Amino acid sequence: MDAYCVSPEELPALDIERLGPATVDSPLTARRRRFTEDDERVSVYTHSHTLRALHSGGEIPTFEVAGPRRKLFFQPRTLRCGIVTCGGLCPGLNDVIRTVTLALIWQYAVEKVYGFRYGYAGLTANPPAPPMELTPEVVDDIHLQGGDILGSSRGPQDENEMVDTLERMGISLLFVVGGDGTMRGARALAGAVKRRGAAVAVIGIPKTIDNDISGIEQSFGFSTAVEACRAAIHSAHQEARGAWNGVGLVKLMGRESGFIAAQATLANSDVNFCFVPEAPPVLDGPGGFLEALERRLDVKHHAVVVVAEGVGETLAGQKGDVRLDISGNAVREDIGPLLHRWMVEHFKAVGKPISVKYIDPSYMIRSLPADSNDSAFCLMLGQNAVHAGMSGRTDMVIGYWNQYYVHIPIDLATLKRKKLDPRGDVWQTVLETTGQLRWS
Amino acid sequence: MDAYCVSPEELPALDIERLGPATVDSPLTARRRRFTEDDERVSVYTHSHTLRALHSGGEIPTFEVAGPRRKLFFQPRTLRCGIVTCGGLCPGLNDVIRTVTLALIWQYAVEKVYGFRYGYAGLTANPPAPPMELTPEVVDDIHLQGGDILGSSRGPQDENEMVDTLERMGISLLFVVGGDGTMRGARALAGAVKRRGAAVAVIGIPKTIDNDISGIEQSFGFSTAVEACRAAIHSAHQEARGAWNGVGLVKLMGRESGFIAAQATLANSDVNFCFVPEAPPVLDGPGGFLEALERRLDVKHHAVVVVAEGVGETLAGQKGDVRLDISGNAVREDIGPLLHRWMVEHFKAVGKPISVKYIDPSYMIRSLPADSNDSAFCLMLGQNAVHAGMSGRTDMVIGYWNQYYVHIPIDLATLKRKKLDPRGDVWQTVLETTGQLRWS
Amino acid sequence: MDAYCVSPEELPALDIERLGPATVDSPLTARRRRFTEDDERVSVYTHSHTLRALHSGGEIPTFEVAGPRRKLFFQPRTLRCGIVTCGGLCPGLNDVIRTVTLALIWQYAVEKVYGFRYGYAGLTANPPAPPMELTPEVVDDIHLQGGDILGSSRGPQDENEMVDTLERMGISLLFVVGGDGTMRGARALAGAVKRRGAAVAVIGIPKTIDNDISGIEQSFGFSTAVEACRAAIHSAHQEARGAWNGVGLVKLMGRESGFIAAQATLANSDVNFCFVPEAPPVLDGPGGFLEALERRLDVKHHAVVVVAEGVGETLAGQKGDVRLDISGNAVREDIGPLLHRWMVEHFKAVGKPISVKYIDPSYMIRSLPADSNDSAFCLMLGQNAVHAGMSGRTDMVIGYWNQYYVHIPIDLATLKRKKLDPRGDVWQTVLETTGQLRWS
Amino acid sequence: MDAYCVSPEELPALDIERLGPATVDSPLTARRRRFTEDDERVSVYTHSHTLRALHSGGEIPTFEVAGPRRKLFFQPRTLRCGIVTCGGLCPGLNDVIRTVTLALIWQYAVEKVYGFRYGYAGLTANPPAPPMELTPEVVDDIHLQGGDILGSSRGPQDENEMVDTLERMGISLLFVVGGDGTMRGARALAGAVKRRGAAVAVIGIPKTIDNDISGIEQSFGFSTAVEACRAAIHSAHQEARGAWNGVGLVKLMGRESGFIAAQATLANSDVNFCFVPEAPPVLDGPGGFLEALERRLDVKHHAVVVVAEGVGETLAGQKGDVRLDISGNAVREDIGPLLHRWMVEHFKAVGKPISVKYIDPSYMIRSLPADSNDSAFCLMLGQNAVHAGMSGRTDMVIGYWNQYYVHIPIDLATLKRKKLDPRGDVWQTVLETTGQLRWS
Repeated sequence: MDAYCVSPEELPALDIERLGPATVDSPLTARRRRFTEDDERVSVYTHSHTLRALHSGGEIPTFEVAGPRRKLFFQPRTLRCGIVTCGGLCPGLNDVIRTVTLALIWQYAVEKVYGFRYGYAGLTANPPAPPMELTPEVVDDIHLQGGDILGSSRGPQDENEMVDTLERMGISLLFVVGGDGTMRGARALAGAVKRRGAAVAVIGIPKTIDNDISGIEQSFGFSTAVEACRAAIHSAHQEARGAWNGVGLVKLMGRESGFIAAQATLANSDVNFCFVPEAPPVLDGPGGFLEALERRLDVKHHAVVVVAEGVGETLAGQKGDVRLDISGNAVREDIGPLLHRWMVEHFKAVGKPISVKYIDPSYMIRSLPADSNDSAFCLMLGQNAVHAGMSGRTDMVIGYWNQYYVHIPIDLATLKRKKLDPRGDVWQTVLETTGQLRWS
Repeated sequence: MDAYCVSPEELPALDIERLGPATVDSPLTARRRRFTEDDERVSVYTHSHTLRALHSGGEIPTFEVAGPRRKLFFQPRTLRCGIVTCGGLCPGLNDVIRTVTLALIWQYAVEKVYGFRYGYAGLTANPPAPPMELTPEVVDDIHLQGGDILGSSRGPQDENEMVDTLERMGISLLFVVGGDGTMRGARALAGAVKRRGAAVAVIGIPKTIDNDISGIEQSFGFSTAVEACRAAIHSAHQEARGAWNGVGLVKLMGRESGFIAAQATLANSDVNFCFVPEAPPVLDGPGGFLEALERRLDVKHHAVVVVAEGVGETLAGQKGDVRLDISGNAVREDIGPLLHRWMVEHFKAVGKPISVKYIDPSYMIRSLPADSNDSAFCLMLGQNAVHAGMSGRTDMVIGYWNQYYVHIPIDLATLKRKKLDPRGDVWQTVLETTGQLRWS
Repeated sequence: MDAYCVSPEELPALDIERLGPATVDSPLTARRRRFTEDDERVSVYTHSHTLRALHSGGEIPTFEVAGPRRKLFFQPRTLRCGIVTCGGLCPGLNDVIRTVTLALIWQYAVEKVYGFRYGYAGLTANPPAPPMELTPEVVDDIHLQGGDILGSSRGPQDENEMVDTLERMGISLLFVVGGDGTMRGARALAGAVKRRGAAVAVIGIPKTIDNDISGIEQSFGFSTAVEACRAAIHSAHQEARGAWNGVGLVKLMGRESGFIAAQATLANSDVNFCFVPEAPPVLDGPGGFLEALERRLDVKHHAVVVVAEGVGETLAGQKGDVRLDISGNAVREDIGPLLHRWMVEHFKAVGKPISVKYIDPSYMIRSLPADSNDSAFCLMLGQNAVHAGMSGRTDMVIGYWNQYYVHIPIDLATLKRKKLDPRGDVWQTVLETTGQLRWS
Repeated sequence: MDAYCVSPEELPALDIERLGPATVDSPLTARRRRFTEDDERVSVYTHSHTLRALHSGGEIPTFEVAGPRRKLFFQPRTLRCGIVTCGGLCPGLNDVIRTVTLALIWQYAVEKVYGFRYGYAGLTANPPAPPMELTPEVVDDIHLQGGDILGSSRGPQDENEMVDTLERMGISLLFVVGGDGTMRGARALAGAVKRRGAAVAVIGIPKTIDNDISGIEQSFGFSTAVEACRAAIHSAHQEARGAWNGVGLVKLMGRESGFIAAQATLANSDVNFCFVPEAPPVLDGPGGFLEALERRLDVKHHAVVVVAEGVGETLAGQKGDVRLDISGNAVREDIGPLLHRWMVEHFKAVGKPISVKYIDPSYMIRSLPADSNDSAFCLMLGQNAVHAGMSGRTDMVIGYWNQYYVHIPIDLATLKRKKLDPRGDVWQTVLETTGQLRWS
């Protein structure tokens, strides 16, 4: 999966902050576990062109390798931990909650694990619902049904109010599961903790169904989501073929990055046009999408169009009409119904009525249980998050890079979104496989 | 499955019209096939209360049993057949097309089978696309992918133009797959044929994903559709639980009859409110749905609402605002977005904001391949349709009733829609299992 | 689904035994529930040929219609109930346990519901595990994962020991879920209760994945099982086509009746040979299966063979070599590996080596969660079982017949197994669709 | 996914052989495609410990990056190509056949593409079936149904006979899809070609459902296979819980490497014991598996055991009893039935009868259509194989490593099998998550 990588020039320091020296023997020692050494690191860059430039410039950047450490910062038996999930549903959330809970309790035997309810709101002075204690019994089967047993919400909360809650509950290790905005919140929280001189570790587990967080090759939920898109695309194809000049329009997730739409297109040869925020279409005029669609319908009499939701945002952005929501994200224009309307109007105008069937599978996908790829991946992410937290690391997220689980500073994870490279293999292959340029 | 049955008083004559005496030996005779005798019939009514009333009144009504006959009306080797599919997609359409084609060619060795394209439009003087010849090679795998290889369209066409096409192509046996409106068209077609003194048989295979055709216990596609609703309802449940005062709203198929919504509710215990055209909700005021939802959210903080699309039509009907579409069906108001808005407005007004996730899985369901129940059922329907047609029967549809495949006059099939009985077992059990009356 | 029906001559009395007069007002009265009247009955026979013979002979046999009664025999608030599941796993078991529990507690508010563990063994003096109390919390989600939370076992237990257990625990209403052998056990139990003059009702819910119990059109789990066979057959087809002279052999459930194999064959056009106990193959010699297979492979170079497990039993029976297991059922010879070996040996002998891939999906099917058809069906069966038990009926099972849920005497349910009619529509269509006679 | 990597010392030369200078302009130039430069390479090693050792020793090893080249060796319009698939079925085979065909025809417009039937046997003087021409129409939908339209076989063939076939058919570019043994055959074929001085390129696409080929992070089919194991494991779990002292035994693919068993265990928390060839169990005696199982059953009364097929081979190897099959691979003892028997005997001997349900899902998995991960992956592999072949490269396979598609010498791909590292993260996490050491 190629992506606009963070370039060597942009790369922030990759050192991971620690709360203090790790002096407590890990209870895993008793069970012949191999431990990760602190000097194990993995190269950020592997391509010869990038490395050639670096070699002349000195130090080669590396990430710290994740894994259990021989020595811990926290004394497990008196440690209270918390976990909070933010943003929209994503396959694998319950797997992460479960793994973090079980690793803390079974492997490290910590005192308590609490789950905060409904996102950062659950950490405020007036939460919608009190935190729930997480035990092996509570989390036993939660991964089998999808969703999020803790519930979630969007938007930030006052970090001092959240630190008050942690202190009041005696929680010294907090796991935060969420996307870009959530990780910014985690940074703010870690900052507030630091200003108070408290020893609270904040470990992030990146959650983005869109796969748009830097430093993680593929995020959990992405595999499940792409597989689930197949049914929607297949239905769109059948609906398109079932009517004269039938068009199946599918809107897929992807607010700023088109990874889901692109990967789903590679995985399903039925797609005739695919549009992503990194390469949004021109609609009107010669060479525009509507004329290309017209040419295709004249020949084939049906077409499948896949569009990432962020394309709407981009178009609105072109028009200078960007509103912000409560989390500070740009309000997206819902591209699905808009594009539906634009297509119908165009073909009515040119006297060739079409039959558009519009499918928006988003909520049927976000709530799914994780597939095996994502389940196993969440297990590894959760375990490594717990190991990192127990060692006293903070202000970091767990990543996966070049075949290793690694520690990524939140600074890097939130530096900029990962995006498809329009000149890269994935997008070029999307263009080849759809043949969408042929009609322009 | 209980349903407002056609009562004995309403029942039309159940005799099946025949084009003429059947004098041709069936080629099935050579293969030791058991044949159905013409005096095999099956009781329409089995309930003691209905039968008691009938016993005093004379003749007990029965349907003719379907199946292969020893003697045919048509000479197979010079017979040309056609098949046309109308209305929206429905799981099993390709199974029916495939079975009819294979039964005609392999069992009866007819001369040709043609598939008309895009519904009745394909039978007009200016079809959107020419008919395609159907051979075993063409239909071999078509049932595996869903959709409809012939394509479909809605709305009637001029019956004389259609008869002209049949005569021009030398087609004497036409299979029509569609719903209520389509069967009315088939009747008109059969009438036009008769007026010309032509010997063309018209056999209907009832297609209604809503399961709303009289004389057929359950229609093909219904089993597949109800199973597919499960994913939508499950997602709505997870989305509802994932947010504070979360509401998952699912709109399901069912324009005039709520069988899909009711059966999906029985099959999925997550549903808290289910509304069907036969028992539409009152929205506002004491005892209304919105207050009931409020009471539930105050206690449980999440809810799943399933609504059949026809509830919108009903409400519009209450308001005297009914428009007709090209097929003469009432234009439905799209209840999903309307109900979404009404809920949001109500809870905003009472100062308890809710988070509604709306799911409309219709196009993802209609295009599915048939499940095993529907595949096997389509096979039996298609085979029996072919047997009926070869024997010279006409103006009838294939039904399934009290454990037998039967011949149903189109007159009865189109007499009135099959509907859920609000006092019957199914709906009463829906009320028990959702507990939706508890909150009123 | 046609089946060797119990003929009018064989039919036992269809009256349902009652423990005594029903004098307690049903709590359902308060909720405007429609009640079933005791004179509601449904015809056993609907075919004109059977009815004609009956009409001359007097009374037309009918089943009592199931459903809630206005008056109960048991006083709910002091009633203790039990439920026990016997035999192999079957999709829907947890749905039944859940529905019975919820109907007893939510609708009737009985005092206690107990689940016995591991079949009738759980009712003995020394059960493998103590009974568990069933509450709404316990059964809430159990239907989502397949299996059987109570566990099961095969074989009968001493009925007096079981009655002792019921008396010791104060249980007056027992629900028994199982097959033919289990229902014989239930009869014995009901008999022992009666001999003691105790007022204990025993209500059966027929469980047979093979669909071989008389008086129930289709049993729960059957729909799920047939759908699950699709994957096995499809795999066998791909494996067969993937090798030169490849043969995919699939063994399906069906000890004495071939409904699953036949229905799976109707639902999957890939099957080339299907064998069931009602129509077992001749293997060797001219016209035998092995020569037919040879002829097909010479032309097509691949074949899919589906065989019901009971065919092995039948062949062993032909050889006079029948052993009995602990439940008194004939020990089946495992037809799969045997047929595999016979085929390989035959083709080696004739100098045409074949590549056989053998698939036995049984345990992957029995443990599945119920599909929507079976879930909704289990709900209705369970509710009606509870209604029947509360009214004081006993020594009966819940059936489904001619569109109604009905009360069937255990006597009838265990009279003889339901079997495919080799001259009936289903089997004849299997022969047509496989074309298996063509190669003989 | 950690694996015993080929160490720097073992690494062969990574240069890719070319048939001659590439002088033909690529037709892709016309379509603004980005091309891969010949000096683009990607690091083999990324871990600091390995790199530190290398830095002192000179050159850092790199793989050539795959992708389309500006200049081709072959003149497309006169080029004839072939494709052959060997070994067992694997999800994605048809995706690869389809992509290679479409890329050759649509992107490069080669003269002809032939598919050889039934493995290397199809390239001999007397093939079981003649080659089939592959066109866009032929391959259009082949990926939707699993299996392999070309068919396959095991074992090598005489390389000179195969070269004769290529020369007779005028084929200069051959794509070989298969595993370890197949790639050795491809090497021999490339060698024979070279000895004749012919200009025939041989490009391998590694196919190993076991994921045991060096130089490719994950092989196609693996994702689909692991997901499909979930159903088998889940069923085993339900069967185990459904009986007193129930044991669900699942045999999974993995002749020499346990990746599938390990990954399936990480993805499914129901597994209590997992055994792989890299860490086979000791069965008997204190600390052995049977005693551990006994301890678990005494406490929990059910268990799920997952065993990779290669464990049988290993045990047979321990006993010095290794036979070789036609491909030169060690004959495996079928561990499933053996382990089944050993368990039953042990528990009978200790007087604690158990109920074992054995599930072998192998043939139901190998024949599946590819999931979205594998479909998209096969597309990229196939496209890059075509690009490599057109540029005149030979004696190589397409790999995926550190986020890039790369060219791997067959020498390296067949050097030694990729195996799980028993001290690595994956296996250590398997031990943590099953808790299987707890019972020893």
